Amino acid sequence: MSTPFKTIGLMGKYQDPSSGPCLQKLARVIHDLGLELVLEAESASYLDQGTPAHRVLARDQMGQACDLIIVLGGDGTLLGAARTFCFFGVPLLGINMGRLGFLANVSLQEIETMLPEILAGQYEVDQRTLLLGSIWREGHYVLSNAPALNDIVVHKGNFARMVEFDTHINDTFAFKLRSDGLIISTPTGSTAYALSAGGPIMHPGMGAMLLVPICPHTMSNRPLVIPDTSTVRICINDLRHNPAQVSFDGHSTINLCEGDQIHIARSPCSASFIHPLGSDHFQLLRQKLHWAEQIGDD
Amino acid sequence: MSTPFKTIGLMGKYQDPSSGPCLQKLARVIHDLGLELVLEAESASYLDQGTPAHRVLARDQMGQACDLIIVLGGDGTLLGAARTFCFFGVPLLGINMGRLGFLANVSLQEIETMLPEILAGQYEVDQRTLLLGSIWREGHYVLSNAPALNDIVVHKGNFARMVEFDTHINDTFAFKLRSDGLIISTPTGSTAYALSAGGPIMHPGMGAMLLVPICPHTMSNRPLVIPDTSTVRICINDLRHNPAQVSFDGHSTINLCEGDQIHIARSPCSASFIHPLGSDHFQLLRQKLHWAEQIGDD
Amino acid sequence: MSTPFKTIGLMGKYQDPSSGPCLQKLARVIHDLGLELVLEAESASYLDQGTPAHRVLARDQMGQACDLIIVLGGDGTLLGAARTFCFFGVPLLGINMGRLGFLANVSLQEIETMLPEILAGQYEVDQRTLLLGSIWREGHYVLSNAPALNDIVVHKGNFARMVEFDTHINDTFAFKLRSDGLIISTPTGSTAYALSAGGPIMHPGMGAMLLVPICPHTMSNRPLVIPDTSTVRICINDLRHNPAQVSFDGHSTINLCEGDQIHIARSPCSASFIHPLGSDHFQLLRQKLHWAEQIGDD
Amino acid sequence: MSTPFKTIGLMGKYQDPSSGPCLQKLARVIHDLGLELVLEAESASYLDQGTPAHRVLARDQMGQACDLIIVLGGDGTLLGAARTFCFFGVPLLGINMGRLGFLANVSLQEIETMLPEILAGQYEVDQRTLLLGSIWREGHYVLSNAPALNDIVVHKGNFARMVEFDTHINDTFAFKLRSDGLIISTPTGSTAYALSAGGPIMHPGMGAMLLVPICPHTMSNRPLVIPDTSTVRICINDLRHNPAQVSFDGHSTINLCEGDQIHIARSPCSASFIHPLGSDHFQLLRQKLHWAEQIGDD
Repeated sequence: MSTPFKTIGLMGKYQDPSSGPCLQKLARVIHDLGLELVLEAESASYLDQGTPAHRVLARDQMGQACDLIIVLGGDGTLLGAARTFCFFGVPLLGINMGRLGFLANVSLQEIETMLPEILAGQYEVDQRTLLLGSIWREGHYVLSNAPALNDIVVHKGNFARMVEFDTHINDTFAFKLRSDGLIISTPTGSTAYALSAGGPIMHPGMGAMLLVPICPHTMSNRPLVIPDTSTVRICINDLRHNPAQVSFDGHSTINLCEGDQIHIARSPCSASFIHPLGSDHFQLLRQKLHWAEQIGDD
Repeated sequence: MSTPFKTIGLMGKYQDPSSGPCLQKLARVIHDLGLELVLEAESASYLDQGTPAHRVLARDQMGQACDLIIVLGGDGTLLGAARTFCFFGVPLLGINMGRLGFLANVSLQEIETMLPEILAGQYEVDQRTLLLGSIWREGHYVLSNAPALNDIVVHKGNFARMVEFDTHINDTFAFKLRSDGLIISTPTGSTAYALSAGGPIMHPGMGAMLLVPICPHTMSNRPLVIPDTSTVRICINDLRHNPAQVSFDGHSTINLCEGDQIHIARSPCSASFIHPLGSDHFQLLRQKLHWAEQIGDD
Repeated sequence: MSTPFKTIGLMGKYQDPSSGPCLQKLARVIHDLGLELVLEAESASYLDQGTPAHRVLARDQMGQACDLIIVLGGDGTLLGAARTFCFFGVPLLGINMGRLGFLANVSLQEIETMLPEILAGQYEVDQRTLLLGSIWREGHYVLSNAPALNDIVVHKGNFARMVEFDTHINDTFAFKLRSDGLIISTPTGSTAYALSAGGPIMHPGMGAMLLVPICPHTMSNRPLVIPDTSTVRICINDLRHNPAQVSFDGHSTINLCEGDQIHIARSPCSASFIHPLGSDHFQLLRQKLHWAEQIGDD
Repeated sequence: MSTPFKTIGLMGKYQDPSSGPCLQKLARVIHDLGLELVLEAESASYLDQGTPAHRVLARDQMGQACDLIIVLGGDGTLLGAARTFCFFGVPLLGINMGRLGFLANVSLQEIETMLPEILAGQYEVDQRTLLLGSIWREGHYVLSNAPALNDIVVHKGNFARMVEFDTHINDTFAFKLRSDGLIISTPTGSTAYALSAGGPIMHPGMGAMLLVPICPHTMSNRPLVIPDTSTVRICINDLRHNPAQVSFDGHSTINLCEGDQIHIARSPCSASFIHPLGSDHFQLLRQKLHWAEQIGDD
């Protein structure tokens, strides 16, 4: 079996010139396999004259032009790429530069042997759900359908004060929360910030959303798992001059006003990640999180 | 719209003669609505001679004979009824005698006005997933497909010692666990024992299984949520003379031997519960669990 | 037995003119008992001409002039008063205006009958430990011995980024932490922010400090309880352009620089609170925190 | 400086003949240092004829006869020795056979160089609090002052049922608990079963008791830290035919009856452990518990 991967995009970590040599190596591997190479504009500037023949495209043009985009960097870089390219359906292959990632779980060392296998159809496609968040203010949307692969977080905007808001699920009131914030996470995000806040680990294949309060001002609030067909609506009732904010994958922080509503639902588009055959999520959990490591094991 | 509910089963709490008068009242309401009444044999023995015309059937014959079974009792009674009747597809209507239940959430006081509405088709059907557990020992099953609506729990058999076992999910090794036990819970069971052990709350409509360790001998074990299409296999490797057991909904405890494997998967049959229109699961959570109740609210 | 309470200070909530009538009532009660009345300057401005004879003093002069200071307000107001007056040894009597507090646990309604009892020596003295925090930067202290009755919190200064620092206890390295922050709490503070972050409840009489990480970037970090004779030193090694801050009882937030060290130790002075005889801390826990309230209790 | 250690007791793990060669090696080291050697009777039976001159004593006679008792084994063996010898004030030196313990933190390899240092006064004494538990039934004590170095645990006696009891602290009602049990732990025990049940880590020098509920049937119960001068009284009100038990350091399990009261207080005697100079409890926490280990550290 062969694959439809003819035109391969290549991009690295944002504003990281030091990734130049690795990108160059990847460009050479792609070129030597007889594939068409497309370099993302910023990454292209980090390569030198020895780079094989290629086109250069702006990031937002790559989704349409490529069959596969190889992303060099850690999970943070992959999160950004997934938010950019999810609407185009183009699959991503994450290459880490040493430290294993949940998304970037192929190492630079492995790529020379793996890429031919992947091009020969020896791979798994891992579809990950994204969330879309919108902010509704005084009768219109001030932000519409901003994507997040890990989480959308509504949080207090400075240290001293907590936020208070109501959460509705499918238009039914669920709970009032006074806290440092609320994390609405995908299964992918369950091993990120939601885990720090005390949430469960979710298998990435789950059709679920996870709501985890951050430092709730009550002892009886627990993480909540709901179907990912749900819509979540958060109503900022009364800020009493305390700032509040919403963030998408820890980025794109936006200030909130009293009366704002944040609407969150699953994106109709998924992010597609390419993994080598035999990828094992539980092994990743054990390796990266020391998951279930025994006390006294030395 | 009318319903196919013509023959109505009625049963009460196991070995509770004091439920006689309430059962009698329910029998009268059912009879007066022109429905055929079937009494479960033990419950029938608690009624007196004023009971309207009815048939008496053994519990295990009721599933086939009835279109709807009304169960008087708390959530524990409903759990038992669900395990008995799930293979027949007959829906259950739970009536509590004062204390609100997650499953038995219609009160005896409400039934006279609600039953006619329900018979007129004014109801919601709430399908709940069950788990099936089997025990494989020395080449054959010593227990096959025992059902649980809340949870299947593998646990140590006496106080002093923990158990140690390996857990595989879909035939992939997931984690080794030294602990007091492991809860494999349905979404329904997430508000029962799994909650006491630190698990998240799951919406009953989730297609999920929840694995919650009980007092794990490590700080890095967290509740795990996996799709309910998964199969879980627990291998009791080495008991070192410590007893271990498995329980279904806190009942039917069975002793385990070294080398035993417990196989757990979703039942192909669901339990069906009938609720009045407008039932609100989040309200139940707030009422029963004091969920998200604020500190300092008086 | 009588008490040395001859000169009674009176102060209300900061910038809350609506407390005027309640202050006036308290002033009358104090005056009618033949005691000398001292009004805090801001509070005095909220009273009208019917106020009985009194002196007016600035807040920072009251500690020396008064034998007892009556504070009208919630726990937040009491926290501030305790920080101000702890160095003078003057005891505080907290009066709440409706909502029970841990510190302000006498209601305005009770004061008329209680104050004579307290003046007759019928009271308990509740000594609460305070922490002192200092910031050491480039060879000198930029903040010296700032007091906190609840907690000193080192935390990230904006949402997107966590902070990373080393914690030493009694000059021994204890742990490196990547997190949203770290709470160093007194027993008094264990029912405040530390509780939201997952800490245990501590009896106020404990000679202990409590360290609770906020959303730690690891599953194996737990709250830590150490003797209150310990010194804690936090070293901000590398901020990578992320702001970090330290706060005292949720106030007095100060920005931190790379290389800063925060030194925390118990204050040699305690805060003294006056309670009626028979005060019951466990009852307060049950009332205010719904502590140990049973699931299903209605 | 020299020490009063002239007569050295030596004992190994209970019913473990395989410890013979290691005990023999230790006996030789003790003898070669010119010290008087006392062998515990069972351990003596594991040694062969090459053992140097020694006396043999029953375990319960060693406390009075020895100045120091060297215990070969893991933390479990040390716990047992501490319960036996705490009333005699004799210090213990724990030697592990490979796996580092919190109490047995000197390895067999180190002993040859360390023992002369210790005999020369180069050591630290680590005093650990013990608890004493008594059971009061129908007007008299059925168990009196049983010691525990880690914890006293009141727990359900079989799987299916929880226990329900009231807890009083210093004769004041603190909380009612429906749960799998309650752990009353010393600081030493805070890294044992109490940690599995979700408790905080306590510095061993704390003057504190820790109460940790096991799978409490409520979301609002938290671990509680109280001064170790407190007395805890647990009243088993109503067992409804469910067995309940109490255990001491996971041993000596005793069945409870309805109406039983368990009284727990600090022992007037401490256990004394000898450590080499420079022992570092935080390093032990990091090594044994992977405490505060970062996610993603490889």
